[in-house]
Amino acid sequence: MERLELISVKHMPVKKVKGFTSSQLSDMLSVEEPLEIRIGYGPEKQRMQKNISVTMRTPGNDLELAVGFLFAEGIISSYKDVVDVYHTDMECSSNKKNIIQVELRENFTPYLVQADRNFYTTSSCGVCGKGSIQSIRTVSPFCDLDKATLNVGIDVLYQLVAKLKEFQSDFEATGGIHASGLFTIYGDLIDLREDVGRHNALDKLIGNALISNLLPLDQHILLLSGRASFELIQKAAMAGVSIVAAIGAPSSLAVELAMEFDITLLGFLKENRFNIYNLSDRTLIQTAYET
Amino acid sequence: MERLELISVKHMPVKKVKGFTSSQLSDMLSVEEPLEIRIGYGPEKQRMQKNISVTMRTPGNDLELAVGFLFAEGIISSYKDVVDVYHTDMECSSNKKNIIQVELRENFTPYLVQADRNFYTTSSCGVCGKGSIQSIRTVSPFCDLDKATLNVGIDVLYQLVAKLKEFQSDFEATGGIHASGLFTIYGDLIDLREDVGRHNALDKLIGNALISNLLPLDQHILLLSGRASFELIQKAAMAGVSIVAAIGAPSSLAVELAMEFDITLLGFLKENRFNIYNLSDRTLIQTAYET
Repeated sequence: MERLELISVKHMPVKKVKGFTSSQLSDMLSVEEPLEIRIGYGPEKQRMQKNISVTMRTPGNDLELAVGFLFAEGIISSYKDVVDVYHTDMECSSNKKNIIQVELRENFTPYLVQADRNFYTTSSCGVCGKGSIQSIRTVSPFCDLDKATLNVGIDVLYQLVAKLKEFQSDFEATGGIHASGLFTIYGDLIDLREDVGRHNALDKLIGNALISNLLPLDQHILLLSGRASFELIQKAAMAGVSIVAAIGAPSSLAVELAMEFDITLLGFLKENRFNIYNLSDRTLIQTAYET
Repeated sequence: MERLELISVKHMPVKKVKGFTSSQLSDMLSVEEPLEIRIGYGPEKQRMQKNISVTMRTPGNDLELAVGFLFAEGIISSYKDVVDVYHTDMECSSNKKNIIQVELRENFTPYLVQADRNFYTTSSCGVCGKGSIQSIRTVSPFCDLDKATLNVGIDVLYQLVAKLKEFQSDFEATGGIHASGLFTIYGDLIDLREDVGRHNALDKLIGNALISNLLPLDQHILLLSGRASFELIQKAAMAGVSIVAAIGAPSSLAVELAMEFDITLLGFLKENRFNIYNLSDRTLIQTAYET
């Protein structure tokens, strides 16, 4: 894998205090800026516009972020629905490119039922964890995918965290970046995205996979640099991921969602240990002795 | 301070793998469930309903979360605007209380201009960091507060993290909870809230302060268990907080917002070190030698 493009960082003055002394230095901080995602849809003579979302994000890979977000929310189901993606120029003293326009093809009707409210609230029973899980099933193109059985070496799992950190461009520098990494089951890093928001990092990763026609990600391992929340497992399920490993803890609902969608979910992954919260019948974790 | 009520945790089976051996155990996970916040407003004969937000949260302190969220978003500006807050019963097999209704007083007009889009997108110049900061100024009741000068001992700062962890009920158990702690400038812990979402933990804390008539929090230190994002500093600014200390890194926009609102912002706070990203003229950090 090639080196990543540099994630935006900003140098700012900082006073470092240690014990009772201090020194003035320059520190690298992760840049955070709002991004507004807008879509254009409908027939040529009656194009409609809709503001879909505003998210705080680290600038970079904005096109992937927008496309990945639309896919993970179920608003589009294929990259073929997208005819153009571009930054909208706007007058602003800071000259930031913080509005992104996604043009959808003429005959495509975006699935906007859920766009005005949050994704996981549309089940008929109202808002509850079970309803949230069910609502994903209605929009995921890959949730009933007949996944192949995967053999994963335990040594491959133990190497993932070091590989992610090796390629993370700015994590050590800023201490404030989340990452999502996509690996083959042999432990080769295919792609990596970073952002101040953990959901953005994954949207960027999925967006690139969608654009690159890599979906579903059923032959892959998704590595999350932090905790595994419901939202992240939701996005993984939408992309057809088979194995999710998180360096941090999962939430209860994340585990329940992984069970529902037959996703293998590992937590607290370190160089010599991890916890298995859900193990799909289609995932075989092999120790060195068994191979 | 009294011990906190137990944050919801869920026991789930987990297989712990270490090296090439594994054992089956029960693990404690942070519970994550959606919460929908609804408001009722307008004259008695023409009451209107509006769904404001759905957020994934750890159940517990839902009333504080709802009230704190409405305040931090600028939808209400005082607890006097609230006449009732309660869980709405609903039919659901899992019997969760995941809808909360906030009834506002008859003659009060909630500030809903920003409720249909994200908070920080209303500036006339569109979406940019500068616009995001300005939009907060329009709704914050305390942003131009004439804050008193605070003397804070450096030893007080060095003790904050240990004090937060001492009172965090479930952090060690689940490894997946964020916390917000409110301290006096003498280092006494006044309040602490926890949640799978860092913004929820702070909304709960601010909601309780609002209900307890403690706002503005200009004589206090707010301690964040993780990173300091724009969103968290935004909420702190809304509550009139003078000093924010984060155990993790701040983002660039968080620092810029702290500068704009004259909030002292410390990052990477440990037992013997921290970084100063912004120091208000009204904050004097005193070493032991100076006292």
